[in-house]
Amino acid sequence: MKKVVTMNIPTVKDLKRVVIIGAGFAGLQVAKKLRRDKFQVVLIDKNNYHTFQPLLYQVATAGLEPDSIAHSIRNIIKDRKNFFFRLANVYYININQQKIYTNIGELNYDYLIIATGSVTNFFGKKNIEYFSLPMKSIPEALDLRSLILQDFESALLTNDIKEKKRLMTFVIVGGGPTGVELAGALAEMKRYVLPNDYPDLDIKYMNIHLLQASSRLLDGMSEQSAKEAYKNLEELGVIIWLNCLVQDYDGKIVFTENNKKIESANVIWAAGVKGAIIKGFANEDIKRQRILVDDYLKVIKYDNIFAIGDVAYNDQNKSYPNGYPMTAQPAIQQGNYLVKNFNYLLDKNVIKPFVYLNLGSMATIGRNKAVCDFPFFKLKGFLAWIIWMFVHLISLVGFRNRVIALTNWIIQYLQYNKSVRLIIRPFNRKKNHLKIN
Amino acid sequence: MKKVVTMNIPTVKDLKRVVIIGAGFAGLQVAKKLRRDKFQVVLIDKNNYHTFQPLLYQVATAGLEPDSIAHSIRNIIKDRKNFFFRLANVYYININQQKIYTNIGELNYDYLIIATGSVTNFFGKKNIEYFSLPMKSIPEALDLRSLILQDFESALLTNDIKEKKRLMTFVIVGGGPTGVELAGALAEMKRYVLPNDYPDLDIKYMNIHLLQASSRLLDGMSEQSAKEAYKNLEELGVIIWLNCLVQDYDGKIVFTENNKKIESANVIWAAGVKGAIIKGFANEDIKRQRILVDDYLKVIKYDNIFAIGDVAYNDQNKSYPNGYPMTAQPAIQQGNYLVKNFNYLLDKNVIKPFVYLNLGSMATIGRNKAVCDFPFFKLKGFLAWIIWMFVHLISLVGFRNRVIALTNWIIQYLQYNKSVRLIIRPFNRKKNHLKIN
Repeated sequence: MKKVVTMNIPTVKDLKRVVIIGAGFAGLQVAKKLRRDKFQVVLIDKNNYHTFQPLLYQVATAGLEPDSIAHSIRNIIKDRKNFFFRLANVYYININQQKIYTNIGELNYDYLIIATGSVTNFFGKKNIEYFSLPMKSIPEALDLRSLILQDFESALLTNDIKEKKRLMTFVIVGGGPTGVELAGALAEMKRYVLPNDYPDLDIKYMNIHLLQASSRLLDGMSEQSAKEAYKNLEELGVIIWLNCLVQDYDGKIVFTENNKKIESANVIWAAGVKGAIIKGFANEDIKRQRILVDDYLKVIKYDNIFAIGDVAYNDQNKSYPNGYPMTAQPAIQQGNYLVKNFNYLLDKNVIKPFVYLNLGSMATIGRNKAVCDFPFFKLKGFLAWIIWMFVHLISLVGFRNRVIALTNWIIQYLQYNKSVRLIIRPFNRKKNHLKIN
Repeated sequence: MKKVVTMNIPTVKDLKRVVIIGAGFAGLQVAKKLRRDKFQVVLIDKNNYHTFQPLLYQVATAGLEPDSIAHSIRNIIKDRKNFFFRLANVYYININQQKIYTNIGELNYDYLIIATGSVTNFFGKKNIEYFSLPMKSIPEALDLRSLILQDFESALLTNDIKEKKRLMTFVIVGGGPTGVELAGALAEMKRYVLPNDYPDLDIKYMNIHLLQASSRLLDGMSEQSAKEAYKNLEELGVIIWLNCLVQDYDGKIVFTENNKKIESANVIWAAGVKGAIIKGFANEDIKRQRILVDDYLKVIKYDNIFAIGDVAYNDQNKSYPNGYPMTAQPAIQQGNYLVKNFNYLLDKNVIKPFVYLNLGSMATIGRNKAVCDFPFFKLKGFLAWIIWMFVHLISLVGFRNRVIALTNWIIQYLQYNKSVRLIIRPFNRKKNHLKIN
């Protein structure tokens, strides 16, 4: 029996179809706010949920379950008039035919909005891609959580000190917010949680290395905040290596360009991201592994394709020659900007170019410790930490997610605990070089 | 490099080693309470957490995340004096040598306590085992959750009504507490959640069938409660088939012995369990797929092996000729009984046989609906539901799990919602007979 496979989305006369690929911070804004009396909106994502990526590291370090940082897309956008969500992987865009190809069929568009975000950038280093763990999605964060716990269970079983140390050594590559927050959370596990769970293991064998290619942490933040983060992490026992570019990793030893060698079974790669570009664009549409857009977020050569969020790059913007930071703020603002444009377009008003308003950035290092850079002042310590929590809490999607995350945070704070130390799906290193059994 | 692989547990002179296999309700009681000034206690489980199985169905129906019903074993038993937990699969018991074999090495025991619980019983029906979904573990419950949501996503894509219906039809086999509670929760998803999530799907195509081999639901409970559950489920739209024994399932059609055929892509098998017996016992040690024990829970032929919980069966007990119910209560009571015996043994006191005290049983059908059988009275409706919640809440391990579960329940109750509609790890039917793509 041949089954009918189609995206099953009706074509409505006089209603232009806007297809949005990606339900991250950028795509979700557009999907939520686009006027559906004027457009049919089709949102496509490879997951049925929106991920609040800034808190992935807490899922990885047994602090939160996925349900705090993920929210069902169908629950976010409840009014379905002229709105369709499809769970699909987009393989290819045929720009001439105005058509996308997915694993559930093809679909024509009138307007296409690329909001595919970014993927981990291994900079072509195949060994590292093969042997290290990224942390860009919830399944990856859960894998990392399982691995940390499995390593400790394995370390119990060996009397070979070298092997024990290797299992208990964590190398985080990349000193941006992700690397800093993950290092801090791991260091807190070392201090408060793991010694109680594994009294038979000498916790001094556990080492957390943070490797940063440039001369300072948190490149996107102020020098002052970077220094504070450095100090906080050092106090927590994190071993920080600046100006330290990773050259190779064979699953057992990390090799750096300045000839350092660190034995570790666990390398977490947080050293960079690149645009998640779907096939179908010409080479000249792409620069710095992102899609080239103009001041109006339009993909330059085409009249009906836009790119927003991490995947978009405007090389004409002198204030941000490297592009806007690949973080939530520019994505949200670009989503909102584009929504306005689509509405203006209808009214034939004049459109102004997109201007990014830097609202500040922040990173938490641990209990009572964070740094915040705001446009007119900087904060550190307890107050910064409270603000960090508040901002992240209100940024979560939905009342329930906020309540559950806050409840978890309060209990953890009081108990000095990371409660979700569960190996639900054991991480399977197909790569048997690391296998203990 | 040959790695040292061992369970790495020290042998201490004058300290008898008690090995407990399984950290379910029974094993956990023993592990927590055995006097460790007199015994070295080794607890082995294939997971690093204890599972509160009675609420698995809420994980499957998007009500709770695993962290509400699972608790890290290392967090439960914090005092490690003469206590060791090992994450391992036990493959074989060599009774003559007093030794167990596991994936992480072998271990000698002085006393062995089998608390391995039960596994899904497919009664030798290979097709059903292959094509249906069990719900005995957290990963299985998560698979079921993913599958329900994936089915709805797939049903959107087809215009073949027969295929659509098949994807939206759920057949639950087994009318015990698990089947009843799962059917009720699915029916509530049908009523309150899925029509909002999938307005393009005609919800009337969604059917929930509950198939029960005997002439009534909830065989272990009173006739009165069974009738109430039947009535409640019917009101929720569940199609109940009594005296209906499933014969076969080919992945598309369920065949029953009374020649019924139900087309369904989703068969959930809750029709029975059997003891999880480890290899190494003689045939005469096993009866009704459980391990034969005497009135003192000792495995009959051996002086130093005990079995408790679901896996144990005493065929001499006239009050329970089919054995004690394979539920939490007997397991907990047997665990506690055995702990006492071990302590009495040391004091050379006389041991009394185990007596099971039936504290009652209960099942919830849905919002404000439950049935409770207590020794001297029965309850139904709202009050029964409140008691059901209270009993399950206090039975969860740990303050945090209770708070998180209660918070979820309150929010869901107020919002008429099941919040965790997340396909985190898509369920992969390797069996391509059902594949839509």
